[in-house]
Amino acid sequence: MRVGVLGGGQLARMLALAGHPLGLSLVVVDPSPEACAAPVSDHLCAGYDDVDALARLAVEAEVVTFEFENVALSTLEGLSARVPVRPAPIALVTARDRVVEKEMFAKLGIPAAPFAPVANTADLARAIEKCGVPAILKTRTEGYDGKGQVVIRDAALAESAWHALGRRPAIVEQMIPFAREVSVIAVRGLRGEIRFYPLVENTHRDGILRLSVCRTDDAMTQQAQSFAERLMVELGYVGVLALELFEVDGTLLANEFAPRVHNSGHWTIEGAATSQFENHLRAVAGLPLGATHAIAESAMVNLVGAIPRAEDVLAHDDCHLHLYGKSAREGRKLGHITVRAQNAAELRVKIDALRELPGASREI
Amino acid sequence: MRVGVLGGGQLARMLALAGHPLGLSLVVVDPSPEACAAPVSDHLCAGYDDVDALARLAVEAEVVTFEFENVALSTLEGLSARVPVRPAPIALVTARDRVVEKEMFAKLGIPAAPFAPVANTADLARAIEKCGVPAILKTRTEGYDGKGQVVIRDAALAESAWHALGRRPAIVEQMIPFAREVSVIAVRGLRGEIRFYPLVENTHRDGILRLSVCRTDDAMTQQAQSFAERLMVELGYVGVLALELFEVDGTLLANEFAPRVHNSGHWTIEGAATSQFENHLRAVAGLPLGATHAIAESAMVNLVGAIPRAEDVLAHDDCHLHLYGKSAREGRKLGHITVRAQNAAELRVKIDALRELPGASREI
Repeated sequence: MRVGVLGGGQLARMLALAGHPLGLSLVVVDPSPEACAAPVSDHLCAGYDDVDALARLAVEAEVVTFEFENVALSTLEGLSARVPVRPAPIALVTARDRVVEKEMFAKLGIPAAPFAPVANTADLARAIEKCGVPAILKTRTEGYDGKGQVVIRDAALAESAWHALGRRPAIVEQMIPFAREVSVIAVRGLRGEIRFYPLVENTHRDGILRLSVCRTDDAMTQQAQSFAERLMVELGYVGVLALELFEVDGTLLANEFAPRVHNSGHWTIEGAATSQFENHLRAVAGLPLGATHAIAESAMVNLVGAIPRAEDVLAHDDCHLHLYGKSAREGRKLGHITVRAQNAAELRVKIDALRELPGASREI
Repeated sequence: MRVGVLGGGQLARMLALAGHPLGLSLVVVDPSPEACAAPVSDHLCAGYDDVDALARLAVEAEVVTFEFENVALSTLEGLSARVPVRPAPIALVTARDRVVEKEMFAKLGIPAAPFAPVANTADLARAIEKCGVPAILKTRTEGYDGKGQVVIRDAALAESAWHALGRRPAIVEQMIPFAREVSVIAVRGLRGEIRFYPLVENTHRDGILRLSVCRTDDAMTQQAQSFAERLMVELGYVGVLALELFEVDGTLLANEFAPRVHNSGHWTIEGAATSQFENHLRAVAGLPLGATHAIAESAMVNLVGAIPRAEDVLAHDDCHLHLYGKSAREGRKLGHITVRAQNAAELRVKIDALRELPGASREI
């Protein structure tokens, strides 16, 4: 079976590597000639609005999925009319607008920080009054890795903060000090069956994910899974979904969700019975889902902005290097390392040993 | 780094899939336009004697290895003069001639069944007298999956048996009833370090491997590892080597070795800390070797001649499908399934559940 993917970055690359053994080959649309997925898939080098390329995708693929979220709704709907798109466009439309997303959380009874949309100066004042300071002002769309957001600590500076974001449609969210950030990766099959990976605890630096540690039997697991399940059922979801949450005073607040495989699930390649990439493909191809339990104590260390020498990574036993075939650039995710261990203490020792590598963060 | 491979079959395909995450991409030489490795590597579609293609390989690759053994020695030596070939050609030259191989076993004190070379009718008579009947007559070169060999149960029929093999240079081996067949997969790095995978117990049907079961802590482990180590050291070996052995009365007799990744090591993709494919690449690229311990009770079921429906395989938890992208043909290895379990009893139950699938053997 041929699976079409909008976007040919590292997520598509890892989907492609997971697909070949199952007899699933990928055809990806990506405007970059250096798309990471190109060496392991068929690459249609074209923009996401290229009518001819999308028509070809609809012919060549039996099902289409995406790793890139900023595809025009008209593109997705046009594709949907010709070939199954999984997850359905509604999931993408919901996830990529922070206001729509937060309204969905509210509708489903999923707790989140107080928020208010901002379209004009009057909205902004009302929003700051509602949420208080400190608050976070974010663009409604296209923010990622900490981009498109700014913290407002003084209500008098809200206007200039919004100006810094180009006065784009925005959202103000109350800034709540949290104990930790966790995420739950879940997968829903074509017949509605759902499987959850263990909860993951995430550490960010400069707005970029640096470390994810799998926390089997975490006390927050049931709550997180219940929220993810509500979302997936509501959206008629098919595929892998990642829900990011903050733990505040022993309860979880939803931050955002990604309608796709997710950086905080990369540990599953070696750490879980079935990787998130394989399970996403199984789901969109209508195949049975694979087991999602952790097979070892596992963690993932992101490589950002620099790539260590392979020998310096591989000298550590049961540490698995994943490079994305990208050229180095500051703040760019270039690869990751999966770390496996027999127990939590050994895992921590192994993570500590990787901290000094180029690309890893000393603060993980 | 670019790694050149002579041969673009399923072994090269699985090497390529293991290489991409490490930043190692493959360029393969294979005369078939449908080479299994083509979708995941750069494919030079040319014969193994194509001077231009080999010259290009020597330029494009920093190191060359092989998955196909019947490459002319002159080709290998020509390549070796221009680019490192690992393992060195002597390993291939030894492994592909059964007489040279058995003489190497004898030289290294590795027990094997009595044997004698056959170049003419007089040799044949002497060989049968030395080894007795039943004996196995095999061509010295190019036999695989039970091809190129015939059992001689009556000395009077030896001549016609040899005729059936085209009177090619041959070897007669005493046929010794064995309790079981095992193999040891080992890897040796560029600096001489060696790691061993756990012993594997193999079941053949019609001369073709059908089932490999990983036997951690098998009583024969030390003996098998000692033999493999002698071979690797003698050959100055770099890469993965597989040594097949028969257990007879509590001792091991060497059958043959393969100077490459091996079918009985396919379980390592999901079953070991580092797969044989990744470790072969690490070795030939001069990188540190990865851990070789089993991470679960593991086995591999070969898919021969037919491919089951993916959904029928994937419905079994922790069973991992590997298809090679080949069209079905009787006796052809088309894929395999890795089975993982918590304990030996659960593993057996899972293997039994796969026996009835198209391509699997009922007798495993």
